[in-house]
Amino acid sequence: MGNSKQKKILVIHGPNLHLLGKREPGIYGNFSLDELNNSLYNHINSKEFDIEIFQTNSEGEIVEKITKTCYDFLIINPAAYTHTSVAIRDALLGINKPTIEVHISNIFKREEFRQKSLISDVVIGVICGLGKQSYLLGLEAAVVHLRKQ
Amino acid sequence: MGNSKQKKILVIHGPNLHLLGKREPGIYGNFSLDELNNSLYNHINSKEFDIEIFQTNSEGEIVEKITKTCYDFLIINPAAYTHTSVAIRDALLGINKPTIEVHISNIFKREEFRQKSLISDVVIGVICGLGKQSYLLGLEAAVVHLRKQ
Amino acid sequence: MGNSKQKKILVIHGPNLHLLGKREPGIYGNFSLDELNNSLYNHINSKEFDIEIFQTNSEGEIVEKITKTCYDFLIINPAAYTHTSVAIRDALLGINKPTIEVHISNIFKREEFRQKSLISDVVIGVICGLGKQSYLLGLEAAVVHLRKQ
Amino acid sequence: MGNSKQKKILVIHGPNLHLLGKREPGIYGNFSLDELNNSLYNHINSKEFDIEIFQTNSEGEIVEKITKTCYDFLIINPAAYTHTSVAIRDALLGINKPTIEVHISNIFKREEFRQKSLISDVVIGVICGLGKQSYLLGLEAAVVHLRKQ
Amino acid sequence: MGNSKQKKILVIHGPNLHLLGKREPGIYGNFSLDELNNSLYNHINSKEFDIEIFQTNSEGEIVEKITKTCYDFLIINPAAYTHTSVAIRDALLGINKPTIEVHISNIFKREEFRQKSLISDVVIGVICGLGKQSYLLGLEAAVVHLRKQ
Amino acid sequence: MGNSKQKKILVIHGPNLHLLGKREPGIYGNFSLDELNNSLYNHINSKEFDIEIFQTNSEGEIVEKITKTCYDFLIINPAAYTHTSVAIRDALLGINKPTIEVHISNIFKREEFRQKSLISDVVIGVICGLGKQSYLLGLEAAVVHLRKQ
Amino acid sequence: MGNSKQKKILVIHGPNLHLLGKREPGIYGNFSLDELNNSLYNHINSKEFDIEIFQTNSEGEIVEKITKTCYDFLIINPAAYTHTSVAIRDALLGINKPTIEVHISNIFKREEFRQKSLISDVVIGVICGLGKQSYLLGLEAAVVHLRKQ
Amino acid sequence: MGNSKQKKILVIHGPNLHLLGKREPGIYGNFSLDELNNSLYNHINSKEFDIEIFQTNSEGEIVEKITKTCYDFLIINPAAYTHTSVAIRDALLGINKPTIEVHISNIFKREEFRQKSLISDVVIGVICGLGKQSYLLGLEAAVVHLRKQ
Amino acid sequence: MGNSKQKKILVIHGPNLHLLGKREPGIYGNFSLDELNNSLYNHINSKEFDIEIFQTNSEGEIVEKITKTCYDFLIINPAAYTHTSVAIRDALLGINKPTIEVHISNIFKREEFRQKSLISDVVIGVICGLGKQSYLLGLEAAVVHLRKQ
Amino acid sequence: MGNSKQKKILVIHGPNLHLLGKREPGIYGNFSLDELNNSLYNHINSKEFDIEIFQTNSEGEIVEKITKTCYDFLIINPAAYTHTSVAIRDALLGINKPTIEVHISNIFKREEFRQKSLISDVVIGVICGLGKQSYLLGLEAAVVHLRKQ
Amino acid sequence: MGNSKQKKILVIHGPNLHLLGKREPGIYGNFSLDELNNSLYNHINSKEFDIEIFQTNSEGEIVEKITKTCYDFLIINPAAYTHTSVAIRDALLGINKPTIEVHISNIFKREEFRQKSLISDVVIGVICGLGKQSYLLGLEAAVVHLRKQ
Amino acid sequence: MGNSKQKKILVIHGPNLHLLGKREPGIYGNFSLDELNNSLYNHINSKEFDIEIFQTNSEGEIVEKITKTCYDFLIINPAAYTHTSVAIRDALLGINKPTIEVHISNIFKREEFRQKSLISDVVIGVICGLGKQSYLLGLEAAVVHLRKQ
Repeated sequence: MGNSKQKKILVIHGPNLHLLGKREPGIYGNFSLDELNNSLYNHINSKEFDIEIFQTNSEGEIVEKITKTCYDFLIINPAAYTHTSVAIRDALLGINKPTIEVHISNIFKREEFRQKSLISDVVIGVICGLGKQSYLLGLEAAVVHLRKQ
Repeated sequence: MGNSKQKKILVIHGPNLHLLGKREPGIYGNFSLDELNNSLYNHINSKEFDIEIFQTNSEGEIVEKITKTCYDFLIINPAAYTHTSVAIRDALLGINKPTIEVHISNIFKREEFRQKSLISDVVIGVICGLGKQSYLLGLEAAVVHLRKQ
Repeated sequence: MGNSKQKKILVIHGPNLHLLGKREPGIYGNFSLDELNNSLYNHINSKEFDIEIFQTNSEGEIVEKITKTCYDFLIINPAAYTHTSVAIRDALLGINKPTIEVHISNIFKREEFRQKSLISDVVIGVICGLGKQSYLLGLEAAVVHLRKQ
Repeated sequence: MGNSKQKKILVIHGPNLHLLGKREPGIYGNFSLDELNNSLYNHINSKEFDIEIFQTNSEGEIVEKITKTCYDFLIINPAAYTHTSVAIRDALLGINKPTIEVHISNIFKREEFRQKSLISDVVIGVICGLGKQSYLLGLEAAVVHLRKQ
Repeated sequence: MGNSKQKKILVIHGPNLHLLGKREPGIYGNFSLDELNNSLYNHINSKEFDIEIFQTNSEGEIVEKITKTCYDFLIINPAAYTHTSVAIRDALLGINKPTIEVHISNIFKREEFRQKSLISDVVIGVICGLGKQSYLLGLEAAVVHLRKQ
Repeated sequence: MGNSKQKKILVIHGPNLHLLGKREPGIYGNFSLDELNNSLYNHINSKEFDIEIFQTNSEGEIVEKITKTCYDFLIINPAAYTHTSVAIRDALLGINKPTIEVHISNIFKREEFRQKSLISDVVIGVICGLGKQSYLLGLEAAVVHLRKQ
Repeated sequence: MGNSKQKKILVIHGPNLHLLGKREPGIYGNFSLDELNNSLYNHINSKEFDIEIFQTNSEGEIVEKITKTCYDFLIINPAAYTHTSVAIRDALLGINKPTIEVHISNIFKREEFRQKSLISDVVIGVICGLGKQSYLLGLEAAVVHLRKQ
Repeated sequence: MGNSKQKKILVIHGPNLHLLGKREPGIYGNFSLDELNNSLYNHINSKEFDIEIFQTNSEGEIVEKITKTCYDFLIINPAAYTHTSVAIRDALLGINKPTIEVHISNIFKREEFRQKSLISDVVIGVICGLGKQSYLLGLEAAVVHLRKQ
Repeated sequence: MGNSKQKKILVIHGPNLHLLGKREPGIYGNFSLDELNNSLYNHINSKEFDIEIFQTNSEGEIVEKITKTCYDFLIINPAAYTHTSVAIRDALLGINKPTIEVHISNIFKREEFRQKSLISDVVIGVICGLGKQSYLLGLEAAVVHLRKQ
Repeated sequence: MGNSKQKKILVIHGPNLHLLGKREPGIYGNFSLDELNNSLYNHINSKEFDIEIFQTNSEGEIVEKITKTCYDFLIINPAAYTHTSVAIRDALLGINKPTIEVHISNIFKREEFRQKSLISDVVIGVICGLGKQSYLLGLEAAVVHLRKQ
Repeated sequence: MGNSKQKKILVIHGPNLHLLGKREPGIYGNFSLDELNNSLYNHINSKEFDIEIFQTNSEGEIVEKITKTCYDFLIINPAAYTHTSVAIRDALLGINKPTIEVHISNIFKREEFRQKSLISDVVIGVICGLGKQSYLLGLEAAVVHLRKQ
Repeated sequence: MGNSKQKKILVIHGPNLHLLGKREPGIYGNFSLDELNNSLYNHINSKEFDIEIFQTNSEGEIVEKITKTCYDFLIINPAAYTHTSVAIRDALLGINKPTIEVHISNIFKREEFRQKSLISDVVIGVICGLGKQSYLLGLEAAVVHLRKQ
């Protein structure tokens, strides 16, 4: 699955993101998860990069995915687990791969408890509030980062 | 599973509720989960309603159940996840079905951290402390709610 | 006022509940206090129980009512005093009768200070957010409780 | 009591304001409650407005006065109840008449607990620290408000 | 009502103290309010002092009693209002008579919210936890204080 | 600039008040800063008083204005600096002229951080929530204050 | 030292109490420690009781005294250690003798940190603010307590 | 300055950003402000957009720039003022133009006080931690946003 | 799996412990999970005890393991779930078997949020910071405990 | 005192531990300090190690002992000073010898203030709740540590 | 301005210090800013050092001065900005010159909010409460520091 | 010890300062306590002043020294007790001699709990972070202070 010289970028969607398009569209927009994923697959016109996308509602499966998959860069939207999961934080610390945290909505406009991320201080950077663009810009940052190496 | 004109009421039991009858009976009472479930199946003498009951110890499976099952009303006892799960909250917000939160014990008599629910402000109402009755009254409220529609 | 073999259930409505129907109907519903009281008198079709209903805007009078009336079960909506009255808490502790706390609105959806009750940990259970049903289900729980004795 | 075309302005003095002139004059000034009330009756030279003034030391009576009297505008100095009474807040929310909160002393110069009002966010505005003028300016604001309607 | 040369000592019992003997005897002891009052009347064998005792469940009536009665020394057990009443605090500040706060139980052994008194910093001193003795020692302190003048 | 026997009243408008009429009119009203200033110049029909009005977006310039201008009374709307500027507080303490703090909107209805003023406890009084009237009533209070001297 | 049938009352004065009479007399009064001790020795006219008095500035020595002396009742003014010493608390818990905590000044009128005692919830009761009387009344309470046994 | 059909994008650099390249390079990178600005001018190969860049160390001047310049989109790095300036927040609220907040460093890896932005909840989105890329991705998001209109 | 007379000791490793040896070796040491497990199997030279070891990244599976396996003593390192899982706490409370909590690292030297365990107050004791020894000493304590029975 | 090639292990017992066996046996067990010390002397069957044991009730003497004695490893139960002594913390930091903190009781099951140790983050590890075993296991850990050197 | 071999010491006075001598003399003393500056110019009898002194009321100008002037040592009294300015903190971090923070008054005797400095942890040391001496001793420390280099 | 006309300056070194030179030299420097003391004895070339220096690790002995020695000025480095000792604070308040608090390290760069001094608001001023200079400058301030009298 991908040329061995390719750099692999893993994208993880956390819980409830399978509801995109149906879930609170005023906050999350009208696009479905499939549409978002297609945008991600098509955004980079280069054979340098292989993109794998994974969605789950289970914290344990996110930990498994982070720690048991091979990849060069991680783009993660931990969704609800952003605010509660020390296990995902520990997985990121344990694996120590370059990572960007993205959010579709602007978490700073929402409930108090959504404004504290347990992940932000162990990733390179954070992009939020830009809808589908949050992911696409994260992908561009991954490309810039991987080409620098 | 159930007549298509029936309204379906889903009941979710969260983690450790499979221990009912064995677990701290001074707090949770002497009835087993099976006894509780039988009371629920038998409480409503009407073919209008179909009741499905689900128990799991996994947060991710509760999210899956909430978001991937068809139902008209949800009665949920999120148990320990009441106090920690933003993912269940987001599932409820994403699906937006009428929901009542129930607790067997009076959570306000217990540890400080049990007195904050992450769910209460996204459901219709809360019933707690009444043992098996918490569920049965929740079921009655569901019936009243569904007949009004 | 009531057969001496009857069990007596006292219902106390706290401050501003005389405004029901006029007061913030989006929160409290369209029914008047008289309509609510009629529902309460008519809900139990049994001579086993005598229901007394009392409304006041005065904290001191609630204390007096709790401590100077004879009854077997108390259903109380302390309204605004829920969040500020140690005196009502002490009256409940002093008399130590089985009690259920009810609220018409879901207090967990409202201002921060409404989410802390000074009463909840000294009653059997709490029912909130179900409108008029909060009281009617409380009444049913009282009946179940009194018949068990 | 007052011409039916007149607009009625109700002024409520909360607990301990009957002590004016005797109570901590460095904070509350040297004028008595009667002198303050006379200033209020005489300040508006117009038959358009009827002023009723009410003082009580009881929280419940303030709630009763707010919810059971007819008036067009309320000027209220809830005094000590400013900081503790959810019941008065609820009465104001329930009746929803235009209201101004006034204080003789500058509550922000006093004890920590006096700096939080449970009323301020449900009234039009607040005037404090200007002694007798706090009331007189409140009255002028009432007049401007009522003439605009 | 007392020889005019006598010094008058007023004793105020706050809410729920009419329940003494019945209310949580493990905390408040087995004596009734009448027994306590008799001990108070009999404790001082001297015509120098006239003792008046007053019990009420109403915050407003405590304010009225403090501000509208003539006395030389006040012994007050504000009970539940200890922790919530700015109005009683203001009454004490407004009248400025020598005052001692007493409690039957040791409030520091009880719920967190009972450990903050709104009264303690505006009285001479505090005596708590000594049962009936809390009052009797308060009375002795009053006598010493009044004789010093 | 003003008759030497006149008393001078300085009015300071803090940051963003030059936007009045355009800025969030639901909160700040429809009048422009020029219209507000004209109301202020015209409100006092007396040669006793000279009014100077000053607007700036700079904290340092407010400090300079407070400490380097001659005036008898200050009416200040520190706007955003209300909540963050110790420097303006220190300027007021350093100069120690009679001052009233005014706000167009009711700051107690807004974000949590707007409910704490660093200025309120070093001024005579506060008027807020009354729109343009907040300033006009402040001006009247200034006149009453200056005539009393 | 003392008849073997006598009950022994131990009085412990904590740090800086050797300065009485010199130290902040507005707070602690004009009497010296010797004068206070003489009042204590002379207050009880009965051979039933033997009083031992001990002053030290060392926390460790207070722990030693509490745990290595024989006595029937303890009156302790832990002074500064009231607010900081878990060791004294543990000594009291370990020995478990009836104890009263006394303070010369009203600690509730003083700095915030003086309002939390680490001792109050492990003693019978607390007396504060009554100057020398705080000790004398504590002694009387000890006598009443010991005679009851 | 710019074709009238062009959309104008304003970029504001807050205090101390003139030090880029010299200031803590481990945190802020090795590029100078001029290099960053050149990257910004060259990043968009289209005459559709006119970019204006502004740096200042003064809070008041940022407020002035935001409220007195014509532009269609704002990219702002408020630097130190992110955490303290209600005035910049109010300027953004007053003008209400689409805005993105950017930071060179990952503010969530730094001092506690840098983790609270007073701006984030009044902008569209936030990008941080990606060095020069934070600005370039912000510019791309601006382009996407402006083309959608 | 084990002689029926043997006592069974269950050891649970929480999330990310499969990474031992690779994950932050400065904190967690250089040994792998297999090496640790071998040390555990070999540490007790006695047929009295049967040791079962279980690792999972899923909170729900830890709950299942605790509540659905037969064992006499539990040694648990809940890792990241230590700080967030009420469900594991409830499982321990529900089953009520003797349990020791162990941690490889000294959690008190790490991030603030790692210093609060939701488990510590429902187990017998805690051992942390001693690397592999934390487990081995826990095992010895289990042996001592089981032999005492 | 001890062969010069021996490694010396110092054991410090903090305040009130001389009461072991008498003090709250439900919490601290039935063994006396002498019995505990004998267990410690006898636990290690090897001439490699010399054990010195020291008990004091004085914080200053613990500081002196830590900083003025020669030893290779320290096992300390600071008892009450665990929660209050910066001086002991500083002594440990100043001397910088390998140290283990032990507690007989599980401090996490006790008062809130006992759950914060000022020592834990400057020692190697912590063992608590295992009674006499807490010390014995600490001794074993010391032996393992010293043999590794 | 100054011999090129001289070391230059920059002294910055923050907002309101131009009021010295007039502003709250009980706190700040009777000397004017000119007198203070003369003391500073005359305190060091050596041509080794050139002293430049700067006062401003503007936060932005302090940032400019710190970052755009050449000097070897900085003595800064940020006055009111001590407690609010992240921008000055960032300027100090960005330039990274040896710096001492001085205050005329003892900030620990004043309002709560004056007791937190945003600067103290990024300077060498702090001197406060010694009036004019705070500056003069700071100057001496600068001399010692510069001669050591 | 010292001419009777001399002014006496007492210097107190708190706990662990006997370790200077050995203890964390990156924080406390390389000089020993003897070297520091010699610097202090030699710094003032005048027979006007007699310097006494005292070091102890015991809180009680610091209290004794402060309250039982004759001196005109106190320079105190309470070290660890700075943050925990109300007893030393009370001793300073009780004796009320002019005092300066000094610290070798910059306490604001260290652990959170070291940033709160219980002493700072009862002394004249504070000097910290300047190593040995903190004491020497304190001595100079003492000389200036004593000569002014």
